[in-house]
Amino acid sequence: MTLRTPYLLFIGDAPDQLAAKTAAGIAYWRPDISKGQMRLPGCRADLGIPDMTIEEAAKAGVKTVIVGTTNRGGVLGEGWEKLLVEAIELGMDLASGLHHKLAEIPALRNAAARHGRQIADVRHPTREFAVGNGIKRAGKRLLTVGTDCSIGKMYTALALEREMRSRGIKADFRATGQTGIFIAGDGVSIDAVVSDFVSGAVEWLCPEHDADHWDLVEGQGSLFHASYAGVTLGLIHGAQPDALVVCHEPTRPHMRGLPGYKLPDLKTCIARNIEAAQLTNPAVRCVGLSINTSGLDAAAAQDYLRRTEDELVLPCVDPVRVGVGAIVDRLAAD
Amino acid sequence: MTLRTPYLLFIGDAPDQLAAKTAAGIAYWRPDISKGQMRLPGCRADLGIPDMTIEEAAKAGVKTVIVGTTNRGGVLGEGWEKLLVEAIELGMDLASGLHHKLAEIPALRNAAARHGRQIADVRHPTREFAVGNGIKRAGKRLLTVGTDCSIGKMYTALALEREMRSRGIKADFRATGQTGIFIAGDGVSIDAVVSDFVSGAVEWLCPEHDADHWDLVEGQGSLFHASYAGVTLGLIHGAQPDALVVCHEPTRPHMRGLPGYKLPDLKTCIARNIEAAQLTNPAVRCVGLSINTSGLDAAAAQDYLRRTEDELVLPCVDPVRVGVGAIVDRLAAD
Repeated sequence: MTLRTPYLLFIGDAPDQLAAKTAAGIAYWRPDISKGQMRLPGCRADLGIPDMTIEEAAKAGVKTVIVGTTNRGGVLGEGWEKLLVEAIELGMDLASGLHHKLAEIPALRNAAARHGRQIADVRHPTREFAVGNGIKRAGKRLLTVGTDCSIGKMYTALALEREMRSRGIKADFRATGQTGIFIAGDGVSIDAVVSDFVSGAVEWLCPEHDADHWDLVEGQGSLFHASYAGVTLGLIHGAQPDALVVCHEPTRPHMRGLPGYKLPDLKTCIARNIEAAQLTNPAVRCVGLSINTSGLDAAAAQDYLRRTEDELVLPCVDPVRVGVGAIVDRLAAD
Repeated sequence: MTLRTPYLLFIGDAPDQLAAKTAAGIAYWRPDISKGQMRLPGCRADLGIPDMTIEEAAKAGVKTVIVGTTNRGGVLGEGWEKLLVEAIELGMDLASGLHHKLAEIPALRNAAARHGRQIADVRHPTREFAVGNGIKRAGKRLLTVGTDCSIGKMYTALALEREMRSRGIKADFRATGQTGIFIAGDGVSIDAVVSDFVSGAVEWLCPEHDADHWDLVEGQGSLFHASYAGVTLGLIHGAQPDALVVCHEPTRPHMRGLPGYKLPDLKTCIARNIEAAQLTNPAVRCVGLSINTSGLDAAAAQDYLRRTEDELVLPCVDPVRVGVGAIVDRLAAD
């Protein structure tokens, strides 16, 4: 499933900025393909890009309307269906990250069939994958892993892509979650794949490539998350990474959604991820840490990064505050 | 999905005993519910139980016809459909372990609807599961793990159930694969669950129980298998095991289906499985090894078991040759 660009980012009546975080991620990482936002009365989020109606978007050359808002229950708000049918009638595709499939709403499905348009429910894989084969493949791969879920793995992979491309290094972000898929224009929502085929799906996602090309694979979950560690392990094995970057947030009190579970310490986290990744690539190494220090003031953040760097003898950066240049230096130095 | 018993084991024209191994497992572990076998011309397998026609099975009180043969492509052989429709018309349910769903064959689906009968495609989960929550639950659980796939994890769990029950210990086998599901009459085909929900599905499969009750959970895959390790890890975390039994086959040249991958040594295998299981149960311990020594002669087998036992200081048995009594002794001693 490849999404046609540019996009109109539909954020409905998102009650706050967080409810529109998928769309905000797209607008931040792909301003070039984010033509406009569409907001409905009551919306309290703002992506900082032009407001457009469905008609204006069609005139501006938009090819896909992204339903990029999360609402409780994941269903469409009142009146949204009519707007999305209008988008289809004006020649645009739809793409959604909602749990409930847009393609299963009769009015949308019928309109899409009538007008030959695509509805991409990116949370739901549309193809079958083979079982992973573990065969060594050419090209280089970096995977972001983490102490927990929602801790900066997508952001870090995208920041690495930007930094590496700016230095003339061949690099492509590979998306494994819904926001990443909208940003990349394709990918696999890996946690929605049947468990037997997770590593095979990742092998498909980042196949053999030129020897000097880097795939920057978006990590998911954490080996230390009691709900999702299996997804993470299949992803590690399928990615066959040459390099790992460990993501962390130092002020988080417990694993996301699991009050009884503490985050692992960084040394253990690095060791376990390396141990797991060695199965399909014995030469894997950790090349740095990406820390979300937004919970610390500037001085505390700087202190944390410096101490961690000294302790682990690895580049340790906040991708927002200081960028990922030091990690790319390390990669390039090897 | 609970299967009604007793069964007729339909093995079609299975070209050899291996092609009927699912049915053979049912007949071996559940002779009490395996009323008969049905074989077609050309069948070269024999389960050692009475041959019956569909009609005879119905008269004998059979409640479910198990399509327990695997054929290339997983489709039904010629003429099978007619026989299975007849079974439905005579009041029996169908259950299948084939990849292709029986319930999607119109003639079978329609017959089942007409007669109010059930078609259970046990490879395909029919319910939704919650995400794993990792909350500590009462009751005891033992999980079989292994150096590789297809290495005795189901057999060992069933042998433990038989031995423990014979000693008056409350114990239930919990099935995670198709053959196990036929044997137990219910369960979850865990490798067919969407990856996000694997640990949650296992939490559902072996829920809270009496403090002195053991669930004997059938393991799947291996932490060391590049294709399936993610399934295994989710299963470990969801099972929250108090005890692990490690299964192994000492003459296997490489990981099943992966010629480039060697089996891990037993010490490493134990350590990694314990390490993984400690996330949801810090008190987990390995209580023994279950070795398939069928590739060794009697003297070599005895020697292997003795040496391994000395080296690892754990009960080390072949469940077929010597039984699992020593492992249950160890469990009971703690």
